[in-house]
Amino acid sequence: MRQPIDSVALGTEAYALVKELYPICRSITGAGVRDTLTILERFLPLERSSVPTGTRVFDWEIPREWNIVDAYIQDADGRRVIDFKQSNLHVVNYSVPVRERMTRAQLLPHLHTDPRNPDWIPYRTSYYRDSWGFCLSQNQLARLPDGEYDVCIDATLAPGDLTYAELSIPGADTDEIVVFTHICHPSLCNDNLSGIAVSTLLARSVFASAPHHFSYRFIFAPATIGSIAWLSRNESRVDRIRHGLVLASLGDCGSLTYKRSRRGAADVDRVVDYVLTRRGAGRSENFSPYGYDERQFCSPGFDLPFGRLTRTPNGRYPEYHTSADNLSFVSAESLGDSLSACVEVIRTLEKNGRYLNLSPKCEPRLGPRGLLRTCGGRSPSDAEHAILWVLNQSDGGSDLLSIAVKANMDFDAIADAAHALDQAGLLRRLGHGD
Amino acid sequence: MRQPIDSVALGTEAYALVKELYPICRSITGAGVRDTLTILERFLPLERSSVPTGTRVFDWEIPREWNIVDAYIQDADGRRVIDFKQSNLHVVNYSVPVRERMTRAQLLPHLHTDPRNPDWIPYRTSYYRDSWGFCLSQNQLARLPDGEYDVCIDATLAPGDLTYAELSIPGADTDEIVVFTHICHPSLCNDNLSGIAVSTLLARSVFASAPHHFSYRFIFAPATIGSIAWLSRNESRVDRIRHGLVLASLGDCGSLTYKRSRRGAADVDRVVDYVLTRRGAGRSENFSPYGYDERQFCSPGFDLPFGRLTRTPNGRYPEYHTSADNLSFVSAESLGDSLSACVEVIRTLEKNGRYLNLSPKCEPRLGPRGLLRTCGGRSPSDAEHAILWVLNQSDGGSDLLSIAVKANMDFDAIADAAHALDQAGLLRRLGHGD
Amino acid sequence: MRQPIDSVALGTEAYALVKELYPICRSITGAGVRDTLTILERFLPLERSSVPTGTRVFDWEIPREWNIVDAYIQDADGRRVIDFKQSNLHVVNYSVPVRERMTRAQLLPHLHTDPRNPDWIPYRTSYYRDSWGFCLSQNQLARLPDGEYDVCIDATLAPGDLTYAELSIPGADTDEIVVFTHICHPSLCNDNLSGIAVSTLLARSVFASAPHHFSYRFIFAPATIGSIAWLSRNESRVDRIRHGLVLASLGDCGSLTYKRSRRGAADVDRVVDYVLTRRGAGRSENFSPYGYDERQFCSPGFDLPFGRLTRTPNGRYPEYHTSADNLSFVSAESLGDSLSACVEVIRTLEKNGRYLNLSPKCEPRLGPRGLLRTCGGRSPSDAEHAILWVLNQSDGGSDLLSIAVKANMDFDAIADAAHALDQAGLLRRLGHGD
Repeated sequence: MRQPIDSVALGTEAYALVKELYPICRSITGAGVRDTLTILERFLPLERSSVPTGTRVFDWEIPREWNIVDAYIQDADGRRVIDFKQSNLHVVNYSVPVRERMTRAQLLPHLHTDPRNPDWIPYRTSYYRDSWGFCLSQNQLARLPDGEYDVCIDATLAPGDLTYAELSIPGADTDEIVVFTHICHPSLCNDNLSGIAVSTLLARSVFASAPHHFSYRFIFAPATIGSIAWLSRNESRVDRIRHGLVLASLGDCGSLTYKRSRRGAADVDRVVDYVLTRRGAGRSENFSPYGYDERQFCSPGFDLPFGRLTRTPNGRYPEYHTSADNLSFVSAESLGDSLSACVEVIRTLEKNGRYLNLSPKCEPRLGPRGLLRTCGGRSPSDAEHAILWVLNQSDGGSDLLSIAVKANMDFDAIADAAHALDQAGLLRRLGHGD
Repeated sequence: MRQPIDSVALGTEAYALVKELYPICRSITGAGVRDTLTILERFLPLERSSVPTGTRVFDWEIPREWNIVDAYIQDADGRRVIDFKQSNLHVVNYSVPVRERMTRAQLLPHLHTDPRNPDWIPYRTSYYRDSWGFCLSQNQLARLPDGEYDVCIDATLAPGDLTYAELSIPGADTDEIVVFTHICHPSLCNDNLSGIAVSTLLARSVFASAPHHFSYRFIFAPATIGSIAWLSRNESRVDRIRHGLVLASLGDCGSLTYKRSRRGAADVDRVVDYVLTRRGAGRSENFSPYGYDERQFCSPGFDLPFGRLTRTPNGRYPEYHTSADNLSFVSAESLGDSLSACVEVIRTLEKNGRYLNLSPKCEPRLGPRGLLRTCGGRSPSDAEHAILWVLNQSDGGSDLLSIAVKANMDFDAIADAAHALDQAGLLRRLGHGD
Repeated sequence: MRQPIDSVALGTEAYALVKELYPICRSITGAGVRDTLTILERFLPLERSSVPTGTRVFDWEIPREWNIVDAYIQDADGRRVIDFKQSNLHVVNYSVPVRERMTRAQLLPHLHTDPRNPDWIPYRTSYYRDSWGFCLSQNQLARLPDGEYDVCIDATLAPGDLTYAELSIPGADTDEIVVFTHICHPSLCNDNLSGIAVSTLLARSVFASAPHHFSYRFIFAPATIGSIAWLSRNESRVDRIRHGLVLASLGDCGSLTYKRSRRGAADVDRVVDYVLTRRGAGRSENFSPYGYDERQFCSPGFDLPFGRLTRTPNGRYPEYHTSADNLSFVSAESLGDSLSACVEVIRTLEKNGRYLNLSPKCEPRLGPRGLLRTCGGRSPSDAEHAILWVLNQSDGGSDLLSIAVKANMDFDAIADAAHALDQAGLLRRLGHGD
């Protein structure tokens, strides 16, 4: 997996996937999620799970399933002034069904706009409180004359299931790298069709190049309730999670932003910090409890080593959670760049073992093992320096990345040295428990 | 106790108390200390303790009690050239009685001046070595002609008691906040009538607003031998001291200086650092073993979390331990400012608990508990951010102040969030032992 | 040992020793090493050890002993164009014997030059692979016409011994300070006749001023295989090594460079850092696994607190391992300065104990023990400050150097205070195990 990926071709493929998924009205439950998974199954052999309405998951309960057929506000002349078919953002997600005639004044408390961006439709939800509403642009609202309106939300809220899907890829070790992506947002491209596309193509790449040192688990699930449900049903096995990444908002033109895990210096944090530094673009920031599903993985009762990779973080761009997060807001180039960074992170996590020097008392002889030039007296080469560093620091406590940092050498040079020493029988890679 | 105190009125009251206490000739034992406590008892229901002369307290022994009626140096014409009644600093504190006629040359070894400040009388003591002496200004000494002098110190050194007093205020927890103030200096305003006045009014305010989370103990005792005696008699109960403060020199025009405890990052250190930063004036410095009674509380055999709050520290202003530390050297404004900082420290210590998230696996639902806006999709408010921070970090290891620092939020916002979560049954405040 | 040493006289003496040792052709085994030790025995009562060829030492084996009588390349006219008698660097150290006639083209693969420095002869070795070769300047090579040459290396490689020598100086404590110096390089002055001379005169000075708190062991051995052999034969006693120093390359005009131990903050690291800072010249750098025999002492299976003192480190000056590392490259002044720094390091290590305050609850009375001025009220003197610091910090965890750093006071002032308190029965020096 060392050769560079073709990030241009993959970015183009990711963008096409975003485009295909864009029209679907997703929510935390319902047909939109399942239709989305069906498309992803063209790429990945996913395993779906269904959690029935009413199931207790920690402090929460799986809500009724929401499905929507149509919705509109129609004026007295029978014209649809607001039409779900124009944009699924027009309906407050999880609205209860409604079919009523009312005045503009009666309608007003049910209308949501974003006055700072008068052309955009905001995205609003009401998952856990029975209510209904419409979202529209401030300009649309301004054009709505007094009068009577027919309001229709043709939706159902009924017992059903919450659906999520996983791809599990066994590795040499049962220790897992978990990649989580939320799939519940309707027609919003960056948040999170971009994450879905990147995660899907990353999973395909890992699947194709298996086996790896680690086992892998890619999870596609609704935000919050989805990760809570997954954690609730997999509580007994979270101990095997070695590294975790939440992927989201990876298509905008901003540079990459890594949010560190709650632990702050977990292996995944150090690795992504390093990869972003080496790529010369992007930056890391410390954990905060506002964000995506890292909130659940990093809740104090789990405190798993989960970081989050986005480009511009949620809430820090005006298009966030509005109709302006559309197909123009994301690009194949950004998607390709995100994917390439993810591949580099995975590659580094794979190689970044802790090793034990099996000949720890004094230096072992390198010459007879073909690890040293034969003529003495000259200063060692870079490769020899890397070998000396790995031998000296491989006491079981330091991983290769920390050796590279201490030696001020490139990670790959250190990893190559470890590989050569391992081949020569001078090192042993340690597992998590060693 | 959240509302701001009226620091102007309290500063004025503190200054009046300094003025009333100023004329009394105090020492580490004797009537001056008892007269001082009698005045403080108008404000506080103090409990006095007497430790008899000869009592062993660790490496020390309670000295004889010293009382003085009068002292002077009289010239051949019967004129008092040095007169204790003009300033009680004129007599070396703890001088043995003397009544002698002697030449200027014989007198000279008993005279102390401060040549760098020729108008000021220095303050000198001789608690533990039998001797006598007079302090006078360099200019007074220069005016003393050759000739014979009658020297009189009408004092007694006799078995008696060392006296100190305490105010104990029980709280919800038996864990204590201890505030120590030395009361042994004669007519010196900043050192330490300022500390006595601030401590007295602080104690009155705490007493009036009880009960609190912590129990409180305000100690008024002579410096060094007083804290040593107190520790000796209370050794079995020092384990309950959670936070300690020595208050001294709080009336001069310098800004506040906090000296951290020997531990360096005790809770009280972090809290006072934070309060000074928030007030935008004052600074903290690391522990050093020179100072006031924090020396005893922070001796290695105790190592208690005792910091010290002063304005300009002892020894760093020329008026220190001279007659220039008088009623002009301190101001109502500085006393009021010091008192207001102390109140803020106490308030922050009170609120700054460690909490345990009782629903630590994933986030608990906030909506049904009235802790969240109902409409989803928007970015959370500051109050919601604070709630997320408190929930995420309340693993029993972090107190609210460290959460506030990590979240880069105001302590009060974090404390309010903790209060709301506590009320909602989602948190439990931990005691010291938890 | 507090009085300054006469570094001018000692530098002159060290330079004379370098000059005397310069002509000898040393290697990792053979007569050159033994001749060198014979000269050192004029200064020190060394104990020699012999390790026979074939002895297993960890991953290594003691090689055959190498001795050389003569070597040359002679042209067709019988003229020696390269002559071992001109410079023992001309022969690749450990060359197998050869006596052959060959063309220039056949000879060429056996010739080593340093093209960047065309006048200098490089130093090359081939200890562990049977081969032979000559080193010459690039200019010499350019002057070598085509034609036939008689090549002769009159050397032997035969079963024998590896020789090293030690000086052990018992101290009050069996804990040891170990000083290691490599003695295997031929006519190279800085690397390492300078180290040999400094170590010899340092050892003589320690020997003359015994007994000390620590025991001492000065080791003179060949590089790499010598320290490996020593460690292999002394494995059971390395636990008593408290501080270690490798001395090498101490005669050039660069300032001192200390390379910290693998531990990074061992006592010896903190002490040398402090000494260099106090001297106002020289600097410390972190451990790296390229260098001299600290590589073996700091291998992960030992991880001993061994630092290394050089002036310009190996490989960072162009003269390194060439004929330009000659008697002009080192100076009496630099040797004297290095020696003076070593003496200061030893002196500081000797004094830098951890102490236990035997009266840890509150301050002990200092007056009756003659440790305090008698007149109270004045600020304490520097000596009194030092006493307060030592008493307050001597909880068994901090050594005097860390107290000095924390107090921002001179180490000697803190050491003097500790001495006075020790004499007064208020402190007890702790051993390594306490």
